[in-house]
Amino acid sequence: MPTSTPTAQDLKPRNELFAERTLDSFSRQTFMTRLGAVLEDVRPGTVMIALDRTPDLCQQHGFFHGGVVGSVADNAGGYAAFTLLGAEDTILTVEYKLNLMAPADGDRLVAQGQVVRGGKTLTVCRSDVFVLRQGEKKLCATMLGTFMALHGRSDHATVAAA
Amino acid sequence: MPTSTPTAQDLKPRNELFAERTLDSFSRQTFMTRLGAVLEDVRPGTVMIALDRTPDLCQQHGFFHGGVVGSVADNAGGYAAFTLLGAEDTILTVEYKLNLMAPADGDRLVAQGQVVRGGKTLTVCRSDVFVLRQGEKKLCATMLGTFMALHGRSDHATVAAA
Amino acid sequence: MPTSTPTAQDLKPRNELFAERTLDSFSRQTFMTRLGAVLEDVRPGTVMIALDRTPDLCQQHGFFHGGVVGSVADNAGGYAAFTLLGAEDTILTVEYKLNLMAPADGDRLVAQGQVVRGGKTLTVCRSDVFVLRQGEKKLCATMLGTFMALHGRSDHATVAAA
Amino acid sequence: MPTSTPTAQDLKPRNELFAERTLDSFSRQTFMTRLGAVLEDVRPGTVMIALDRTPDLCQQHGFFHGGVVGSVADNAGGYAAFTLLGAEDTILTVEYKLNLMAPADGDRLVAQGQVVRGGKTLTVCRSDVFVLRQGEKKLCATMLGTFMALHGRSDHATVAAA
Repeated sequence: MPTSTPTAQDLKPRNELFAERTLDSFSRQTFMTRLGAVLEDVRPGTVMIALDRTPDLCQQHGFFHGGVVGSVADNAGGYAAFTLLGAEDTILTVEYKLNLMAPADGDRLVAQGQVVRGGKTLTVCRSDVFVLRQGEKKLCATMLGTFMALHGRSDHATVAAA
Repeated sequence: MPTSTPTAQDLKPRNELFAERTLDSFSRQTFMTRLGAVLEDVRPGTVMIALDRTPDLCQQHGFFHGGVVGSVADNAGGYAAFTLLGAEDTILTVEYKLNLMAPADGDRLVAQGQVVRGGKTLTVCRSDVFVLRQGEKKLCATMLGTFMALHGRSDHATVAAA
Repeated sequence: MPTSTPTAQDLKPRNELFAERTLDSFSRQTFMTRLGAVLEDVRPGTVMIALDRTPDLCQQHGFFHGGVVGSVADNAGGYAAFTLLGAEDTILTVEYKLNLMAPADGDRLVAQGQVVRGGKTLTVCRSDVFVLRQGEKKLCATMLGTFMALHGRSDHATVAAA
Repeated sequence: MPTSTPTAQDLKPRNELFAERTLDSFSRQTFMTRLGAVLEDVRPGTVMIALDRTPDLCQQHGFFHGGVVGSVADNAGGYAAFTLLGAEDTILTVEYKLNLMAPADGDRLVAQGQVVRGGKTLTVCRSDVFVLRQGEKKLCATMLGTFMALHGRSDHATVAAA
């Protein structure tokens, strides 16, 4: 079976306050707040984001809109990478690819982001997005993306492109 | 120069009411309404979606959140494909890949979606997302995605996955 | 942790001769033969392709060329999907995305393809490509792709696009 | 219509010998030589690669193998980016996404690579791959990818990953 599991070295945080820093950054994303998304789990190289369905998060068939699915998939990948940064670094999404594999038909979305490979500049992450409906959990989307560390630039400051 | 321009045949709508149908479908996406997104231009094989910045659409640096950029990029591609469908068909996003090339630092986003190649079942689309700031228009993201027509299923009904 | 493991139902072959059929199809790809690639393992929903380095498979630094890495990544995904087809079906690659995460610096490449989600028409697969050097195995690339079943069309016949 | 055309500034080479340097690098890729691929056009921010069909470049239906299409699509993007580098820089493919839109059924493949946006570190490129058959030219694949400049590292030396 494929075993693209990152090594322990890949997943060693450079900053012991990584969890506080990740939660702080997430809390300043007004769009995540607006979606009602919560960062529920933060560990080295992996995070979980969850949100409940509200009537204004839907596409034309009443499911979670793909834009909502993509937003939490991207963010879960980005913050998984963020957990491994130094205290003075921030991160940008370079690109991601999302496969929407089943309708996001349910009451709650859960996105699990995981570092696949950490590098000095670029980190590759994967996210799986699950939809929960009446207690059943179903994989509805998967993402593979590339994230870029900006060294020595505060996560609070504005950043220029790479 | 690359000339991946679709042929005239690729871009011939099968339904003369394609514009009304596209606007109707878009209007039923509560998430687009919530974002304040407007479908501003609908032609065969191409649409434009625009939205203004509000304080709850941002990431931690005050720019448009990548999830907003991705949402309109995906939607512009999907509705570009939708314009070419028959009256009884609807569409699903199979997957897309988004490159975020510059910070979405501005007051307004404009996403242009375009069919690259239309097929019986699958349609490939591209979207370019521009950010407007003080009258200047800058390309900030580009998307390449795959969309699947569901024949004979109303856009109003709920749909199962492919 | 992410658990995008396909369910047992997703991985049930519809054709008990799936392994013979997969090996037969692979053997007719002259490009794989030319690369020296061998289909080493065929199970429901997963295959492994391996090849040794020869002097004509390199990029300018002497590593395996990215085109070789991409070819086996794509093919491992496609044949993982192929194992689940009916006896009268064949498969097409719709699209894939490949992250090259480390130089393919070694003597042998091994690509593991795996079905993430099987559907009636579309199958989503992942491949991990490892490079072996002096006994060490390193993940050098990962792929996420979409494959389309063509029902009732022989794998021996020529096929039209979707 | 989408106008993701790079600006003139994006496409200004930093090295007046860019064409010679690009041809030299290409000539050292043994895999391109093996495929019979030729770099036919080199301009700032855009290149063209072509190759003729031979019996050992096929998939099971006798068309060009997707791995060949992907190889030239990736390479055309990478060398388009390479034309804009400084004399002491080299380039790596970070990732790409390829849509195979029609069977590569013909006698000749032509890949056009083009810089979409050049950055200090990362360059985003697009490639279109056309297949020629009996004088007709058909778009069969399109690629969107990310390439990374390695500053101060010779294209002749071996490189470590980012």
